[in-house]
Parts: sequence; C-alpha cells; structure tokens
Amino acid sequence: MPRRMNLVAYLKTGPTANHAGGWRHPGADLQNILDPARYEHIARVLEAARFDGCFYADAFGIADIHRGSFRPYVELGGQISYLDPMLVLPLMARVTRHLGLGATLSTTFHPPYLLARMLSTLDHLSGGRACWNVVTSATEFEARNFGMTLPPKDQRYDQADEMLEACCALWEGWEPDALVLDAAAGRFADPDRIRYADYAGQYVTTRGPLAMPRSPQTRPVFLQAGASPRGRAFAARWAEAVFCASHGRAETLAFYADMKARVAAAGRAPEECAILPALSVVLGETASIAREKAAHLQSLINPELTLATNSTMLGADLSQHRTPEALSAAQGHQGIQGTEDRVLQLMKAEGISFAEAASRPRGLVVGTAAMVADHMEDLFRAGGCDGFVLSPTVSPLMFEEFGRLVVPELQRRGLFRREYAGRTLRENLRAP
Amino acid sequence: MPRRMNLVAYLKTGPTANHAGGWRHPGADLQNILDPARYEHIARVLEAARFDGCFYADAFGIADIHRGSFRPYVELGGQISYLDPMLVLPLMARVTRHLGLGATLSTTFHPPYLLARMLSTLDHLSGGRACWNVVTSATEFEARNFGMTLPPKDQRYDQADEMLEACCALWEGWEPDALVLDAAAGRFADPDRIRYADYAGQYVTTRGPLAMPRSPQTRPVFLQAGASPRGRAFAARWAEAVFCASHGRAETLAFYADMKARVAAAGRAPEECAILPALSVVLGETASIAREKAAHLQSLINPELTLATNSTMLGADLSQHRTPEALSAAQGHQGIQGTEDRVLQLMKAEGISFAEAASRPRGLVVGTAAMVADHMEDLFRAGGCDGFVLSPTVSPLMFEEFGRLVVPELQRRGLFRREYAGRTLRENLRAP
Repeated sequence: MPRRMNLVAYLKTGPTANHAGGWRHPGADLQNILDPARYEHIARVLEAARFDGCFYADAFGIADIHRGSFRPYVELGGQISYLDPMLVLPLMARVTRHLGLGATLSTTFHPPYLLARMLSTLDHLSGGRACWNVVTSATEFEARNFGMTLPPKDQRYDQADEMLEACCALWEGWEPDALVLDAAAGRFADPDRIRYADYAGQYVTTRGPLAMPRSPQTRPVFLQAGASPRGRAFAARWAEAVFCASHGRAETLAFYADMKARVAAAGRAPEECAILPALSVVLGETASIAREKAAHLQSLINPELTLATNSTMLGADLSQHRTPEALSAAQGHQGIQGTEDRVLQLMKAEGISFAEAASRPRGLVVGTAAMVADHMEDLFRAGGCDGFVLSPTVSPLMFEEFGRLVVPELQRRGLFRREYAGRTLRENLRAP
Repeated sequence: MPRRMNLVAYLKTGPTANHAGGWRHPGADLQNILDPARYEHIARVLEAARFDGCFYADAFGIADIHRGSFRPYVELGGQISYLDPMLVLPLMARVTRHLGLGATLSTTFHPPYLLARMLSTLDHLSGGRACWNVVTSATEFEARNFGMTLPPKDQRYDQADEMLEACCALWEGWEPDALVLDAAAGRFADPDRIRYADYAGQYVTTRGPLAMPRSPQTRPVFLQAGASPRGRAFAARWAEAVFCASHGRAETLAFYADMKARVAAAGRAPEECAILPALSVVLGETASIAREKAAHLQSLINPELTLATNSTMLGADLSQHRTPEALSAAQGHQGIQGTEDRVLQLMKAEGISFAEAASRPRGLVVGTAAMVADHMEDLFRAGGCDGFVLSPTVSPLMFEEFGRLVVPELQRRGLFRREYAGRTLRENLRAP
C-alpha cells in the first residue's frame, strides 16, 4: 500500500480563517457566519473531498494589541473566532460520518475537568472523531478575559504537560466494558471498572472519576503547533499531528526531520506523528486565470489588517515596534515563535525590512489543480510532510474548489484516499 | 387573553433525570443514552407538546458522598449527567424551532468568559432560545474536580451575583447593529458600537469585549432554583423562572407568595418571574391502571439508591448521619436547602424518622390525564404556580405520554398554548 497524504482543514467560526481579504470575496457567504447551516455545509464539503478532518482555530477575545485597540480588528474584518466551536462541532458531526472534528482548547485557561468532559462528549457524539488542537495561549488580551496575566511560555508548557496527564487520567477512568446496563438485575455500571483520576500536579489538580463512559477513541487525537524548542518537545511527547507554518522548502524539510527525530527520541514511532505544513491555494483553469484571481484577492487586503494580525501573533504592536529587537523587548510573555520565524526568514530571504516582512500575507500556492498537486507531491515525496493543513483563502469557496479540482488529481496520482478506511479519526490518520 | 401555564422539561444526559428506578423501565430506551438521536427525539417530543422549553440538570463528577464511595451511584444507576449538555443542546436546537434550551452552568466553577461565550453561541445557534439554569454548586466532589474546596454558601451567591453582572456586561458589549458586513467598503463591524466589559469584582474579573455579535435574546433566560433565603434573594434579582420542589399545597402557595413579593421588592414586575414547581406523573387510562403502573415503577427502585441520592443533595452521608442535627454537623458547606426542607416537612407531616423521610422518592401525581390536569389547574388557579417543571419518572416515555394525554386536556381547558406565540424563549415564557 503506498503512503497516502493526510488533509486537514483549518477553520474559524467566522467569515475567514486565514486570508485577511477573504471575507470580502463573494465566495465567503458573509451573511451566514452566525448560521449553523454554514458550518454543516463546510463539513459536508470536506467529507465529500475525503479530508481526514478539520479543526477550529480559536482565541478567547478580540485582539487589541495593534495600536492598543480592537478597532482595526473589528472594523477591517480581522480573524475573530465568533461562535464557540465546541457547540458548532456536534452539528458538523451530525451531518457527516467520517470527518475528524477538532477544537482548539487552551491548557492555560480551561479547567481540566470541563475540558476533558467536552472532548469526551464530542468523541461520543461523533462516534470517535474528536480532535484537540492543544494550545497554551499566547496573548494577554485572552488572559485578561480570565482575570489573569499570561504565565511565561515555559511555565505554560509545563502546565500543558500536566493538563494532558490529568485529562488522560480522566479519560481512562472507565474501562471499556464498565457500562453494564442490566435493567433486570438493577446493575447500571461496574464500580470495580471505574477509578479516580487522582491527579495533583503543580498547576493542575482534579479528582475524577469523569462522569462518562469511555469514548470510542478514549482520548481525542492530539494536534499541536508549537515551533519553539519547548513547543517541539511538547509535540514530540504528545502530538499525533503537528501543524506548522510553511516558510519555504528547505525550512520545511528541516522541520520535518527535526520533529521526526524528536518523536523517535521520545520513544514513539515516527509515523505516530504526522507533520502537516500549512497550505493555501488560489486555483484557476489556467495559470494565468489563477494569477489574476490571486491578484484580485490580494486587492481585497487592507495592509493595516495584515499588520494588525501579525501584531497579534507576535504579541507586540508593529505600529510601534518595527525591528526584531524592539519587538522582542515589547513582547513580554506573548508571541508565537512560528510567526516570528516566518517574518525573520522572509526579511532575510528578500532583504526587506522587518516591518515590511510582517505586513506580507502568508504564502500561498497559485495555479492550476495540477500545479498545486505538483507542489504537494514534491514536498510529500521529498520527506517534507505527511500531508497538509489547508488554510482557506476564501471559505468555504476554497474548500469547494479544492475538493472538486485538486483532490481528484491527488487521487489519480495515488497520493490520497478515495474512501475512508478507518472507523475513527485516529484510524484514518494512521491508515497507510 | 386568559393566563396560560408554562411547561418546562427537566432533563439529564443519561437514562433518567429524577426517578431512581426509571432507568430500569423499558420506556427509558437504555441502550441509546450516549446517542445524539435520543436527545433529538426528546426535543421533538417536547416541541410537539408545545413545551416552553427544557433544561439539563448537571453536575461535574460522580457523587461519592454516600458511604464515602461512588459505588452505589454508578452500580445502581444514580442520576449522573453523562454527556456535556452544552454539546447536546445545539443538536436539539437544530431539530426544533421554538423549544427553549437550557443548560446548568455553575457560577463557582466556570470562568465567566467561557460561560458567556457558550450561552451566547447557543442563543445564536438556536435563534434566541437559550436558557441558563444558574447554580452555585453545592458539593465537594465537584469542587475537587476543579482542584478547589467548596466556598461557603453566602460567598458562592456573592460570586454568582458578580458572575451574572460580568456576563451581562459581556453580552451587552456589542450594540445590536454593530455588525456592518460591508464587503465593498471593507468595513466588517463598527468599533464605536462595541465596548469592553471591564468587569472587576471581588471574585470575578473579565475584560471583554466578548468576541461575538449580540445574540437574539442578548442574555439567555435565567432559570434558578435557590430555596434558602440567600437563594431566594438571588432569584428575586435575576431569575425569569424559578424551579422549586413541591412539598405540598400549602408550602407551594406560601413559596409562590413569598417569591412574588421578593421579585416586586427587587423592583421587578411579578410576572417577569414565573414560579414553576416540580411535577412528576404516572399516567393510566384509569386511576387503577395508573396506580398499578406507579407500584411497578416503585418496585424498580433500590432504596439504597434513593438514600444515596439524598445523601448527595443534602451533602452528608445518610448511612452515617441519621438525624437532622447529625446531618447539619456533617454538611460543611454542602447541601441543598430545598431538599432539606422537603425531607424535614415529610418527617413532620408523616411522623416518620428523618432517615425514613430521606429514603422516600420525591412526590408524584398518579392518575388519569384528567386527574393530573385537575391537580395542575388547581395549583395554577389557586396562585401556587405559573406552570410546572416536568420531572420525568421514565424518560423519554413520560414526556411522550404527557404530550399525548395531558397537554390536549390542558389545551381544551384553555390553560395551555396550542401554538407558540413568540419568536424567542423569553417571548414565549411571558406570552399571556
């Protein structure tokens, strides 16, 4: 059986998930962003295209780092997570049978019992398709919504380790056959097959047992995106899929090799952790149509919004701090390493200023379906990835087009499944 | 327009919500308790019967107060909230158009931002049908799952006041017309119509703004069940519906008068807060069939489970503490006043021991549809209630039978709606 790609869609509950101008495109179906039918439609499109799964990026508030205000974000259509994805995912589960369903939940802000219960419920409701995009959170505006200040990054990761240990103890509290359901004998469950979690860490404490029979996958699939050394160490221990920014072929190959080595060093089989770089596409019947569509899309971007988005991800106001050094001094405990790496590499590669590099939209592939498939095949065969996280330009339009045009091309090349092989998300991710 | 009753269903995600033997009855559909279709079916049944709404009781763990162990609870089929109701309610919203959808969320355990976001999302997804059963939580086993000890009751209510103030500040952060969605102009929302919550209390702090346009009801309908003086004061300020235990006609009339007076004293119109005593029924074609069915149902109860349930609600182990005084000494900060009142009144009314009173199942009405309607009409016309919270004996069976038999009888008597009049849950609750 040849090796097959994994494909995962990157979503937000809102009009856009990645491209700063995408919400202004007619394909964004702007009027239904608060309508459950929008998300059910996306789920059906992704399952028809045989995606492994999807996940919602998330944040707990509206960014106000750029110019110290939420004004540019809300006015220009910044990427805000509107509806709570945890309530939207069950609806998507109900209109699909195979698609994996991921939520971003913060190990810094969520109580472990609530988090474990939500994910276990999603796994039950979906028949074993729950996924957790594990984040430690990296902004003070989120912390303020929880009445906290953001802990230092290393401490956040230490707490994340404890959260996953605690959640696993909760998820494994019921043995698979603990539910008896013998109405005649009056015996509902077997107490000898249920145990306390009894987890007491430095940051996380929970007793259990979780009030829930074991779910089909026991634990959700763990997705993670840490790029810092501490983030990579965390991913090597826990992640079953790693979502990474793609800043060029050489860097992607190096990241892949580094992560697989780390996974092996953590005592796991390298294939237990899929490496999935971000991919965003603009498709056209011809290369020239695609280029023109990309230029149109680019014209919809307000540069101030790109800058504001990068201020949020870097954790410092780029309208004030225009060099890497100034930025560093202003970040505090905030900032995502992967974004910083991308901006610095772009600055170096093109010889442009830091501020200019930070105002560039994230890379995307523009061309025909065959050109996109070529790009994907190259990175896949070269040992740069196990598949991709599809970040939309225009959502849902890009997913509809990708499913219609690129997926059949990948299938013809034997690079992607025609039918789902597994019963659960974990089985599908690991199927050859 | 004559005054009409409100009817609300009391649910749990599990095989039972009230009656300790109900799960053993064939009408409990025991095999599908983790299946979303079970809860969608219940929603359809309740909407066909024109119920105002339903809500899920909830607790964050498995009770281990009785005999210091979770064994009796899980083994005998204790009332455990299995699936997270917050993920089940959107599914019920999707298969109905009018039914109100309530979740129990704890002001002691939930971070305010998460709670406000979940409820606002539910209100959006359901088109204005979200309801919050506000609880302060009353057991140490739940607190332990959050790595806490339970605060004293008065402090819990002080924190609850802050939580509701904080949540309202978050919910009111977007003016109704803040969403602009002008793709041509590149203007997504109007920042002048969005503001910070900036809430900083003694227990609760959150900044905002909530990353969500205002929902159809702005805030969910507030349901509450506090019976203690502090609980009643809280309800008088906030509750739009009060769920109360029903311990006899005189006590119910007194409670109604007391609550309406408190609501008025809090500066609200008395009709803004519906008083809804609990009602549980066993129906038969004749009174004698109903009695026989009730006896059969009673035979399914394991008395040890009734005692364990009351241990949980009273917050002390009834296998050890068999007098009110011993119980009081053992409760600590635990215990639900309404349950204690019920047991003490039963003890007095029937001249039985405290332990015996605590082992009795909660009261129910047994008879024909006309007899049940008579009971409801009497209490409603006598000024004892504005409607009822229907606690199931067997779920979903009791709701199916109640909708088929009692609801038409109430409609014939002009006591209950034939069609929904309002657009939102709040409008339906207050419709004449």
